[in-house]
Amino acid sequence: MAKVVAKSFPMNGGEGVYSYTQNSSHQTTWTTNLQTLTFRLLTCKTLNPLVLHQFLSDILKFSTSDPFTIADFGCSTGPNTFLVVQNVVDAVKLKYQKCPSLSMHSPEFQVYFNDHIDNDFNTLFKSIPLEKQYFAASVPGSFYDRLFPKASLHFVHSSYALHWLSTLPSELLDKNSPAWNKGRITYANAPDEVVKAFKAQFAKDMSSFLNARAEEVVPGGLMGLLLIATPDDIPSPKSIFAGLFDLMGSCLMDMAKIHNLTPKEMEDLVEINGCFTIEDMAPLIHMASDAEKCSKHLRAGMEGVFKEHFGSEIMDELFDRLTRKIEESLILSEG
Amino acid sequence: MAKVVAKSFPMNGGEGVYSYTQNSSHQTTWTTNLQTLTFRLLTCKTLNPLVLHQFLSDILKFSTSDPFTIADFGCSTGPNTFLVVQNVVDAVKLKYQKCPSLSMHSPEFQVYFNDHIDNDFNTLFKSIPLEKQYFAASVPGSFYDRLFPKASLHFVHSSYALHWLSTLPSELLDKNSPAWNKGRITYANAPDEVVKAFKAQFAKDMSSFLNARAEEVVPGGLMGLLLIATPDDIPSPKSIFAGLFDLMGSCLMDMAKIHNLTPKEMEDLVEINGCFTIEDMAPLIHMASDAEKCSKHLRAGMEGVFKEHFGSEIMDELFDRLTRKIEESLILSEG
Repeated sequence: MAKVVAKSFPMNGGEGVYSYTQNSSHQTTWTTNLQTLTFRLLTCKTLNPLVLHQFLSDILKFSTSDPFTIADFGCSTGPNTFLVVQNVVDAVKLKYQKCPSLSMHSPEFQVYFNDHIDNDFNTLFKSIPLEKQYFAASVPGSFYDRLFPKASLHFVHSSYALHWLSTLPSELLDKNSPAWNKGRITYANAPDEVVKAFKAQFAKDMSSFLNARAEEVVPGGLMGLLLIATPDDIPSPKSIFAGLFDLMGSCLMDMAKIHNLTPKEMEDLVEINGCFTIEDMAPLIHMASDAEKCSKHLRAGMEGVFKEHFGSEIMDELFDRLTRKIEESLILSEG
Repeated sequence: MAKVVAKSFPMNGGEGVYSYTQNSSHQTTWTTNLQTLTFRLLTCKTLNPLVLHQFLSDILKFSTSDPFTIADFGCSTGPNTFLVVQNVVDAVKLKYQKCPSLSMHSPEFQVYFNDHIDNDFNTLFKSIPLEKQYFAASVPGSFYDRLFPKASLHFVHSSYALHWLSTLPSELLDKNSPAWNKGRITYANAPDEVVKAFKAQFAKDMSSFLNARAEEVVPGGLMGLLLIATPDDIPSPKSIFAGLFDLMGSCLMDMAKIHNLTPKEMEDLVEINGCFTIEDMAPLIHMASDAEKCSKHLRAGMEGVFKEHFGSEIMDELFDRLTRKIEESLILSEG
């Protein structure tokens, strides 16, 4: 069981103008240099498009009466998590309907919404669609720890969450370390040592995530992971994402605990871990966005971090300045 | 699946001076004319103290590897729900340890905390003990609807929650009905028709609760229900509980949707329902309390109802007046 509650900076709660609820459309439509990483547990032999069929066949070997369980790790306050979950439910239902040998077994669905204990679950619950076709539950806690009983999940999902590190690499705050990240909020334009420290922390966290899920997912289960990533040929510190944070950093501050990985980096970590095999991996398409929208999206996700360091009074000014700097930088048109 | 969200009045959230968290000790130590009603599903043949042993033996016939699942219906914001859950976990663990044939199967525990969607789940989550020996999840929604997949719960618990009706009997608000409850907040000193309307609504709600749980509890599962009740020989409208609400009503208002049943009434409803058998039923001991404490307890649980009718401005005055009226009435010393 988890014994430590990691410090967390949840997405902005409630339903106000800077809430995650009102400012998360880019997580579905605005994506920059993204990679979808989809993993399969242990015994997987087949590849997409047979993945789902094989997955369901495997699941049925183990259980015909249990509910089909879905968990979204890092759900925030919605609405994206509900779209994702409904897509999975629809896909599974369709598969059951179309396949004669499965059609008699159409299961009930149990969906678990996970996020940090500081997440605004009250807003999440009030946003759950009334017409949902599943039983809903939420599970608070860090997804780098065990959160579910053994072999209790059929489908695991996580979007835009696994790039959040569990903690800052301590050497970034150590003035005597070559990885001291003086005057920067992330590793854009930072020394190699800083980048290495971020990579090492990400590798450690990803290992914790994979090991925890390896116990919780049923044999034959499926994971769909959506991460912000830089193409393999662009070093992480040079990505548009790092660039945006560098602009934010030029307004203030010295640190943000996010790592922007590459697909190759993720492949290596999954192989080293050994519990999962990669089934499919595909980039999503970049959709352009304007500076103000981009700034609001960053505010919904990042305000918690900045408030912790600088107080809430300067938030309006910070993000107004950021909007102007994004416009001036032309970073979005370069994407 | 539940399609209607019933209107709800959650316990006071947060951790302030009038919060449920700070004012719910009477639910563990201050109990007036209480009855513990413990039910057993369908196939039960044995009685207490063999109940738990038989229960575990039955459960093991169905599953040796699944987690042991516990659900608390009407959990509010803690801390009582955590005490109850830990007691159940400890009892089950002890049984497993002591019984040689079970000791190899000691399960993981999954605990579900249920309450209305308006409950303050954020406070609940922050109160979960760090040293808990179970996986925690919460399930929002009315317990008069289905909330869990079929046959997914081993132990069901509910304390001080089932006397909350899902809705007010509509005739109480109808000026042309003999059950019009003019000038009263409940049925203390009310005509028989009012009492009958409350009883009928309670019977309907209890039937919904039992039918929903009958689908959700595994064969051989166990329910432990703690309800506020009046002894069979005292009519509900004459109970101390009704008396307290009548004092509150003399300060204001016309209605509260709570029913104070008798044990016999509950026995009849369980028998009519037919899905469960009563395994054990025992009264708890009445502990005296002072007027101010009593008033604070009522405020933590009932402020939501009063705010809805009268606004939050008069709450301090209302409960100050109630404290004085309880003192003057000597109702607590009569208990």
